[in-house]
Amino acid sequence: MNTTLTALETPALLLDAPRLHANIARMKTRMAALGVTLRPHVKTAKCIEVARATDGEGAPPGPITVSTLREADQFADHGWTDITYAVGLTPNKCAHVRRLLDRGVALTVILDSVDAARALSAASADWPTPVAVLIEIDTDGQRAGLPPEAPELLDIAAALVGPGVRLRGVLTHCGGSYHCHGAEALRAMAEQERAGAVRAAERLRAAGFDAPVVSVGATPTALFAERLDGVTEARPGVFVFHDLMMEALGVCSVDEIAVSVLTSVIGHRRDRGWTLVDAGWMALSRDRGLAGEFTDHGLGLVCDADGQPIGGGDWIVAAANQEHGLIAHRSGDTARLLDVPVGTLLRILPQHVCATAAQHPAYAVVDADGQVRARWPRFMGW
Amino acid sequence: MNTTLTALETPALLLDAPRLHANIARMKTRMAALGVTLRPHVKTAKCIEVARATDGEGAPPGPITVSTLREADQFADHGWTDITYAVGLTPNKCAHVRRLLDRGVALTVILDSVDAARALSAASADWPTPVAVLIEIDTDGQRAGLPPEAPELLDIAAALVGPGVRLRGVLTHCGGSYHCHGAEALRAMAEQERAGAVRAAERLRAAGFDAPVVSVGATPTALFAERLDGVTEARPGVFVFHDLMMEALGVCSVDEIAVSVLTSVIGHRRDRGWTLVDAGWMALSRDRGLAGEFTDHGLGLVCDADGQPIGGGDWIVAAANQEHGLIAHRSGDTARLLDVPVGTLLRILPQHVCATAAQHPAYAVVDADGQVRARWPRFMGW
Repeated sequence: MNTTLTALETPALLLDAPRLHANIARMKTRMAALGVTLRPHVKTAKCIEVARATDGEGAPPGPITVSTLREADQFADHGWTDITYAVGLTPNKCAHVRRLLDRGVALTVILDSVDAARALSAASADWPTPVAVLIEIDTDGQRAGLPPEAPELLDIAAALVGPGVRLRGVLTHCGGSYHCHGAEALRAMAEQERAGAVRAAERLRAAGFDAPVVSVGATPTALFAERLDGVTEARPGVFVFHDLMMEALGVCSVDEIAVSVLTSVIGHRRDRGWTLVDAGWMALSRDRGLAGEFTDHGLGLVCDADGQPIGGGDWIVAAANQEHGLIAHRSGDTARLLDVPVGTLLRILPQHVCATAAQHPAYAVVDADGQVRARWPRFMGW
Repeated sequence: MNTTLTALETPALLLDAPRLHANIARMKTRMAALGVTLRPHVKTAKCIEVARATDGEGAPPGPITVSTLREADQFADHGWTDITYAVGLTPNKCAHVRRLLDRGVALTVILDSVDAARALSAASADWPTPVAVLIEIDTDGQRAGLPPEAPELLDIAAALVGPGVRLRGVLTHCGGSYHCHGAEALRAMAEQERAGAVRAAERLRAAGFDAPVVSVGATPTALFAERLDGVTEARPGVFVFHDLMMEALGVCSVDEIAVSVLTSVIGHRRDRGWTLVDAGWMALSRDRGLAGEFTDHGLGLVCDADGQPIGGGDWIVAAANQEHGLIAHRSGDTARLLDVPVGTLLRILPQHVCATAAQHPAYAVVDADGQVRARWPRFMGW
């Protein structure tokens, strides 16, 4: 495959190959310096070829993190065997977990309650291969998990009984890092995440439980952590692509964002200062990123066909319908119009690349020379 | 296929078959009473079986509206031939339009500028079959199109020249109906949409142009219009399913909403009043519907496994990550907790069903007895 952007139908999801490889190299260098295993979260890309690029040319499939058992199925089909499913397990997924174990996947699941531990122990009582279990720890009050000092931590460990389950340690995800203003706050959040996870593992070990795995992760904390003593692995996901949220946090620059949506100008509403494009919320998603906390880029930042922000980055997708995007000036000044002809190609940088990429069936992979060299499929569903 | 909800893995997209059929019957009755052709917008369901249900048991494929040429391809593959693509055409889609014409599809496209008309006329100069063209009219200032009185209307008509294009009339979409409070406002908006479209067609005819087609549409105006004199067809889409936006507008009741997301409880954060479920934004979308203008249902309204709103409709999905939904009380009172066990099945009614359904590969079709009787695939992409 070797074609130009002008030969694509729009909207289309573009992946800048040189930026992808640079982003991966940066994270691997950082993980090596911190002495932890990189277990990338494949939920961002949902793409075999991106995971291969992360493992490295010619390398065997490495450890990965998934957000759905469908991802586990897909990656298992392509040779990955060391998979952590990082969403609390529910009883109606136990049969699926067993199918993955039976086909040779070394699957790890997570949970954060005695009820869930008992349900899994009961469901797995007759499984020939045990499933590894990590207890989810909350280190920032954002979502699921137990606080590191919660008494229930040991009760959960004790409730994991029988031949089908094997406690392996703890896992945490510091989503709070998405609300940190500045490098110092990010470093502090990374330390909070590290310390909480390590503390929970130490409590398990002190009570006689097996807890060799201490898993942390999020792209901001992985890149800003100063030390990860006691941690065994990190699970960043968005680092392969980056997006405007990562840019807002200071984790990347705009020219490190590897994914964009190619779109065409459909028309103009000169009286309102709108330029209409064929990328609506179906192509961009409705994710507004960190609009309430940082600079508001609407549903995305408007770039020219080469990926350079137009007018110093002051044009945004201000609103969208299903297949229509409305480009307006960031100031809201309706007297200003992005006055480019019908048919002009533009690129929109995504607010939240996990959400934007999920709207598309594949990536058009663009090389340094601007040529589209490959189509890498994504998968969806559960 | 005949299974229970408890046998499904969650999250899963449910389609209530009796509600679907009742919603279709209601719209067909209304269109017949108004004397216009129903050209349903298949962008909501993106599903062959839903379009078959709309045409009616045993009926041949009828006229449809699409939002992407991919929809046109898919429906053409299954026998539909009368297709209107209701997003302004861009030059890089002309080759695709020709492929559809060449395979026998009677395709209609829309545009709203002289530039676009000239580009299409030039691109189609050697096409053996002409493409039908409607000029897009703006009747509410929400998106694309020309005002009915715009001088440019006749310039566009004049710019459609050559053997490959055939002007057929006008098309408008009254998205402004989504911001109408009350039945009277909706009736007035429907009349505004009708009158504007008819006026534009009359101007074309008075200038000697062919304009037999006057196409309007949106579910709220289609259901609230008191008369559609001069209109030839309507293009509602969401009526097959309805959603919380339609309920907010008074277009449907909660118990007419035919699509929901089945989800399982993963755990609780009792200190914060959160019940965590396995439907995050990947399963629900990020669409918050009309939250700023009407009652805020967050990312969806929480129902029991039978589809009845819990606690009088006061529990909502207040926040979400990719695969986690956080259920909280509508009041924001963190002392209140939806205290149901891990593994409990819930149904979430969608804010905007076009967006929610788009996150899923298929519908699990549920009959009146609560049994899942079929899996109807959806398609995605462009």
